[in-house]
Amino acid sequence: MEAFSDGVFSIAATLLVLDIAIHPPGTALEQLQHAWPAYLGYIVSFLTIGAAWLAHSALTDRLTRADSLLLRINLVLLLVVGFLPFPTKLVAEGLHDTDAERAFVTLYGLTLLTISILGWTLDAYARHEKLYRRGEDDEVLQAERRDIWPVVGAYVIAIVVGLALPKLAVALYFGLAVFLVVPFRDLRRLLRRS
Amino acid sequence: MEAFSDGVFSIAATLLVLDIAIHPPGTALEQLQHAWPAYLGYIVSFLTIGAAWLAHSALTDRLTRADSLLLRINLVLLLVVGFLPFPTKLVAEGLHDTDAERAFVTLYGLTLLTISILGWTLDAYARHEKLYRRGEDDEVLQAERRDIWPVVGAYVIAIVVGLALPKLAVALYFGLAVFLVVPFRDLRRLLRRS
Amino acid sequence: MEAFSDGVFSIAATLLVLDIAIHPPGTALEQLQHAWPAYLGYIVSFLTIGAAWLAHSALTDRLTRADSLLLRINLVLLLVVGFLPFPTKLVAEGLHDTDAERAFVTLYGLTLLTISILGWTLDAYARHEKLYRRGEDDEVLQAERRDIWPVVGAYVIAIVVGLALPKLAVALYFGLAVFLVVPFRDLRRLLRRS
Amino acid sequence: MEAFSDGVFSIAATLLVLDIAIHPPGTALEQLQHAWPAYLGYIVSFLTIGAAWLAHSALTDRLTRADSLLLRINLVLLLVVGFLPFPTKLVAEGLHDTDAERAFVTLYGLTLLTISILGWTLDAYARHEKLYRRGEDDEVLQAERRDIWPVVGAYVIAIVVGLALPKLAVALYFGLAVFLVVPFRDLRRLLRRS
Repeated sequence: MEAFSDGVFSIAATLLVLDIAIHPPGTALEQLQHAWPAYLGYIVSFLTIGAAWLAHSALTDRLTRADSLLLRINLVLLLVVGFLPFPTKLVAEGLHDTDAERAFVTLYGLTLLTISILGWTLDAYARHEKLYRRGEDDEVLQAERRDIWPVVGAYVIAIVVGLALPKLAVALYFGLAVFLVVPFRDLRRLLRRS
Repeated sequence: MEAFSDGVFSIAATLLVLDIAIHPPGTALEQLQHAWPAYLGYIVSFLTIGAAWLAHSALTDRLTRADSLLLRINLVLLLVVGFLPFPTKLVAEGLHDTDAERAFVTLYGLTLLTISILGWTLDAYARHEKLYRRGEDDEVLQAERRDIWPVVGAYVIAIVVGLALPKLAVALYFGLAVFLVVPFRDLRRLLRRS
Repeated sequence: MEAFSDGVFSIAATLLVLDIAIHPPGTALEQLQHAWPAYLGYIVSFLTIGAAWLAHSALTDRLTRADSLLLRINLVLLLVVGFLPFPTKLVAEGLHDTDAERAFVTLYGLTLLTISILGWTLDAYARHEKLYRRGEDDEVLQAERRDIWPVVGAYVIAIVVGLALPKLAVALYFGLAVFLVVPFRDLRRLLRRS
Repeated sequence: MEAFSDGVFSIAATLLVLDIAIHPPGTALEQLQHAWPAYLGYIVSFLTIGAAWLAHSALTDRLTRADSLLLRINLVLLLVVGFLPFPTKLVAEGLHDTDAERAFVTLYGLTLLTISILGWTLDAYARHEKLYRRGEDDEVLQAERRDIWPVVGAYVIAIVVGLALPKLAVALYFGLAVFLVVPFRDLRRLLRRS
């Protein structure tokens, strides 16, 4: 289960680069600057997949076994993670076109929301079926559980916001990805010590 | 053998997303809706590769050793799994064109059929050569063996149906992929308990 | 060393599918038939990468350690394996054009030749530096060593033939890939027993 | 952490081949020759990723544990490694156009510089937090630490040079990649012995 999952996570993350492209008109520098939605989409999606993978491997490391239903929930999660490069490409290309960007940013948000809900489902099922090692249901997993509903809520808000203001929604997704990846607790600890 | 196989399975599954594209004319929303065969193809192929991988890792986990013929049968299986993104792309693009869709859906069905037959061959060879651990020729493998001939039969029927009604065949492939992935036994057990 | 190598081998093999495409004019069926060089290129390159990976993992399994020069030779081997999808695409697209096919088939053959020579170099260096486990310099590796010079010779002949008759050279590469992958010894043993 | 990292490194390296393409006009041979910046870009990027991976696995092999901040620094490093195929494609396509090549070669150099600085950060953090096994802070890591500042300095010089002479900068990046990969110490030892 881990080899296939790690494969899909790392490939989906690395395929994102194929969504970055520059287009005429303009000088080379202008073309590079004009592609900022592509860079933003790359960063948001890469960090989101990275955060999902960190949570996923915290989860799988603590499993004593994987029953067949867990494997299937995992497969559906991977299906959605593997889909992410498509809405990322749409956002990268559509963010200069007001008609298109609303539809594309909404699809993007729904994909991110689905990934977080499926991640929650995987964890909830593993707990319900007692697939975790005893006493190891540890800090990282608990912190992630505490964070999941605010995150899901933030995705829902960003999706609604995106219907009116797509560019703001992308900024929110960027903020959420940074929030999911940056370990504020550890930074605070590090700063306090030094 | 496992690292290379897991690699090919997870890469082939993740490359499928490159087959999804939207095309003018129409508004962004219409373009997204018009691409439904691409989403369907992505889901069917991803689930089929996922199911093949689940069966494949159930098989390789129980091997005591891999002789060189087994490695070669496996290589041919991977060759066909790695080929699947091509007919998937054809189905995704051709499903709006009645002339093209018949040819493409047939190629797609033949690829799925070949994967299931090669999976069966791999298992049959491993049993014939006694490469499995004793007493571990377990439930999952036996359940898969029971299921294989109905599945092969269903693929043959879907291929024949597809010659006349390609869209119905795609629906059948979708049904088969869902059937292969959903663990009905486990769901029943889960429902009974709760 | 193994994770990165297995990654490059399996990704290079799976990326080959992106080289397959169909082009107008013609009905869907004619387009599919017209793409035969793409299928042939896919099969030859996939089997060649598969055979190279089989030999490579037979080699790495027997290493006691990997010194830094071995890691670098391996890196150059991976660089050429990772390059193979490019000449494969050229052969797939150029085989209908007599001017182009000669140049493309020659580049393809030189890439295959370089892979086999670098594989030989890796093995020769590992032996010279005594990096193999004692007494485990086994049958598979010895059989591969016996085969390597005829294979290199056959590649050279095919490259020369390809300068005049590119299509014949592709047929030779196909024959060589099948020869490298099919375990004739095992088949004979299997037939004798039954 | 290792599976995901190895995945991103090997996929980013192998995706580089997709950046190689030939374009009309000219005979097939002329088109192949005209694509030399693409080959050069492929080799430089592949070797740079290979060298980064060698350093990265020397680092991760010696970790006793990975705290959450290290995982995040690693994720940002992977984000930049996964981005490398994009500037590589730009260099491959833009090196025939004097306006474009300056912008593209600078972006390429900045990406390489960022990778080396992030690699240094990862190592510095691991040392600062005492995440390495005691007494195993060994020769390879120390040699890499000694080399890192000259390498960073060379990247900065090459970036500045590239503003005036982009083609010379590409030659410098090629030289640096070769320098990072070729194990001069081992070659000298090998030559001395024989």
